[in-house]
Amino acid sequence: MDPGFLAQLVSVLGAENVFTDNVSLADYSHDETEDLHYEPEVVVKPVDTAAVSALLRLCNTHHVPVTPRGGGTGLSGGALPVYGGVLLSMERFKAIISIDTENLQATVEPGVITEEFMNAVDAQGLLYPVDPSSKGSCFIGGNVAHGSGGPRVVKYGTIREYILNLEIVLPTGEIIWTGANTLKYASGYNLTQLMIGSEGTLGVVTKIVTKLVPKVQNTVVMLGSFAENEQACAAVSAIFRAGITPSALEFMERRGVEWVVQYDDIHFDIKDGINAYLMIEVDGDNLDAIFKDCEKVNTVLEEFGCSDVLFADTAGQKEELWRMRRTMAESVKSNSVYKEEDTVVPRAALPKLIGGIKEIGSRYGFESVCYGHAGDGNLHINIIKAGMSDEDWKNKLKDGIVELFELTAALGGTISGEHGIGLVQKDFMSIKYSEVNLNLMRGIKNVFDPNGILNPGKIF
Amino acid sequence: MDPGFLAQLVSVLGAENVFTDNVSLADYSHDETEDLHYEPEVVVKPVDTAAVSALLRLCNTHHVPVTPRGGGTGLSGGALPVYGGVLLSMERFKAIISIDTENLQATVEPGVITEEFMNAVDAQGLLYPVDPSSKGSCFIGGNVAHGSGGPRVVKYGTIREYILNLEIVLPTGEIIWTGANTLKYASGYNLTQLMIGSEGTLGVVTKIVTKLVPKVQNTVVMLGSFAENEQACAAVSAIFRAGITPSALEFMERRGVEWVVQYDDIHFDIKDGINAYLMIEVDGDNLDAIFKDCEKVNTVLEEFGCSDVLFADTAGQKEELWRMRRTMAESVKSNSVYKEEDTVVPRAALPKLIGGIKEIGSRYGFESVCYGHAGDGNLHINIIKAGMSDEDWKNKLKDGIVELFELTAALGGTISGEHGIGLVQKDFMSIKYSEVNLNLMRGIKNVFDPNGILNPGKIF
Repeated sequence: MDPGFLAQLVSVLGAENVFTDNVSLADYSHDETEDLHYEPEVVVKPVDTAAVSALLRLCNTHHVPVTPRGGGTGLSGGALPVYGGVLLSMERFKAIISIDTENLQATVEPGVITEEFMNAVDAQGLLYPVDPSSKGSCFIGGNVAHGSGGPRVVKYGTIREYILNLEIVLPTGEIIWTGANTLKYASGYNLTQLMIGSEGTLGVVTKIVTKLVPKVQNTVVMLGSFAENEQACAAVSAIFRAGITPSALEFMERRGVEWVVQYDDIHFDIKDGINAYLMIEVDGDNLDAIFKDCEKVNTVLEEFGCSDVLFADTAGQKEELWRMRRTMAESVKSNSVYKEEDTVVPRAALPKLIGGIKEIGSRYGFESVCYGHAGDGNLHINIIKAGMSDEDWKNKLKDGIVELFELTAALGGTISGEHGIGLVQKDFMSIKYSEVNLNLMRGIKNVFDPNGILNPGKIF
Repeated sequence: MDPGFLAQLVSVLGAENVFTDNVSLADYSHDETEDLHYEPEVVVKPVDTAAVSALLRLCNTHHVPVTPRGGGTGLSGGALPVYGGVLLSMERFKAIISIDTENLQATVEPGVITEEFMNAVDAQGLLYPVDPSSKGSCFIGGNVAHGSGGPRVVKYGTIREYILNLEIVLPTGEIIWTGANTLKYASGYNLTQLMIGSEGTLGVVTKIVTKLVPKVQNTVVMLGSFAENEQACAAVSAIFRAGITPSALEFMERRGVEWVVQYDDIHFDIKDGINAYLMIEVDGDNLDAIFKDCEKVNTVLEEFGCSDVLFADTAGQKEELWRMRRTMAESVKSNSVYKEEDTVVPRAALPKLIGGIKEIGSRYGFESVCYGHAGDGNLHINIIKAGMSDEDWKNKLKDGIVELFELTAALGGTISGEHGIGLVQKDFMSIKYSEVNLNLMRGIKNVFDPNGILNPGKIF
């Protein structure tokens, strides 16, 4: 990196916020996406919006790439500085600026850890329901960048439904608010919604205004056991057709549960002949109403061949089941060489999706562990190397993934439900989206970032 | 209009779909926005996506303005062909293509009347909850264009939360699907969300995929009476703080109710000393739970000085109250020269907003009748000419409206919650949005519509 540019960085941000030591460069060279590493040339940790603005203005002038980074928990390589340059860590934007209990809104900085924000809101008797599995370490700014979901989307919606307004620094250094602090907005193009899910390619989020909702008083969690994946998946859409909207509806394959039990010392009896599980959470203020819903769910589960239903209504039981689900990604990671895909389809297409995954796997020689937010039709597919040769894993697997995404698209779905496109899925975008679509995206990128400095090499 | 171009229109669309008679031109020269008239040069009524594509390709080649139009119920002049040219009526796109009860999704054409779609969905035991007051005549395509809301937004969200995917014809004639038929989407910039609320300036919607939800079994409607506007408005945010999310929470001023009662022959006893009403609907599957919520609401209303609460639980009583609310816009219209504004603020700011409206009115000499979706902080302000001179109405009122929007912006709000910017609010956009914001919007417009043919003269 040019020493003159570096000196300017230091003068704009302060030496204490600029890092070029090897440890820092290595620390910020990866996220949670398999085993990819790209070293930045410098890591910066600005402390406020003005500093981000000065930084971007400088980088824009000198055409230096800037890669914004939240908690580093991304699964699509969105925070990897593939062209080197400046790694912009938002970790010092740690303030929960206000929790407005009059308006049920909060204003937070993007470096706040999602779970800490949820807890702070909860302490005020309110609910912020967007809880991705990585909530203990991801940043809310990263959640905005990826349009994050999580298990409660099925009832509460994605982060898209909770973000009212964003303070953004554009790649040119200009600062705007994208919208208004209101529940409705019909005042021109919705720049807030455009920013959500744009993966840090259009601007850097520096403040976030969220909607909050009243806290729900009660939850019950049920776990249904099935002999076949397809039975469990078919039950999913039937639950909604029975008039129930659960607050979570998760699918887990047997092997995922086996690996979690080994990895995380969870006490759970995995019965013979059981190959798939559905975890269903129903919430509400009125326990009677919840139990009536649970009875209806139970009836549906039995219709689809569920052999055993476990009810969890103590805090400990519920927590144990949730821990099992939340730890699954880590336990897969610790067990095998893998690649994770984040397919999403209309929910009634889940049986065809999971059947297709296994069929494709059998042809290419990979195995798979699937789990995910079945209520949204969102299945995380962990492709396991198993008996595949290193050669095939490196060269042939991609063709199998193409087939997987072609199947997803044919079922009306898309290639990512919540992990984003980032670096690792961008080659697959053309399976689902036409060149006209992609050119519109490129055109929008060019409007916001004419010099292409912000998170280059991502999405398209 | 150039006869050669007209001949090409006829050859592309068929003579039976092209209208240049005076009656047609007059019929399509206005929407429901006060008394504005702009005649198009030709009205076209294509029958399918291919015809819209051919039309736009032709107009783009010849740089002829095209103004898309839905049901013509708009309140911001969005469908007015201010530069003449082609008026593109979507009234022949009338098909409900499918209601998918497995996936809880529907695919419809944009010319379907919102209420007809709601009824068709209801007949399948499902709910499409986006019901603007004009639901009996507006088109769902127009709802998409304006990011429509309605009374149930407070619980169910705006149309933004129900649109999964759109088939769009771009101004260049190219046809795309904007996204996927899925509940989650993290696959690049969200073009679906960008289209919603873009008021027909970026593309013409030709197919719409919506989310549906299970039908709710029961509703109760309450009507609270207050001596003062501010008391009623202050009670609004307190209801949410008590943990209740009503399915509607509407505010009405006394004079609005008086005018409706006169206009629509509704039997309703308007008591002395009552100046404001809150109408609260609570829905759910469990009647006990609903009644418990109603009791909590009742307690809050009393705390804020509500002198009388009417419970409506028969279908007839509920319908009568809803009719009162829904007919209010028409009854104001029939009563006076007026101008309608569509302010929205964080809901706890409503008392300040309504106080400010009256104060500004007293200085400028106008009166006002306010009502609207108070649960969302969305207040429709009908400015009534009253004793204002024609001269002042024409020249000074605008300054008053500027003050109104400055107040709205100062309270964290914006100038339109659900009616859109269109023609009549575009001069006020700079009160809330910076030139940087507006230039981003202009840049996006240019990406989609390089020749500026589609609905020119709107938003900015």
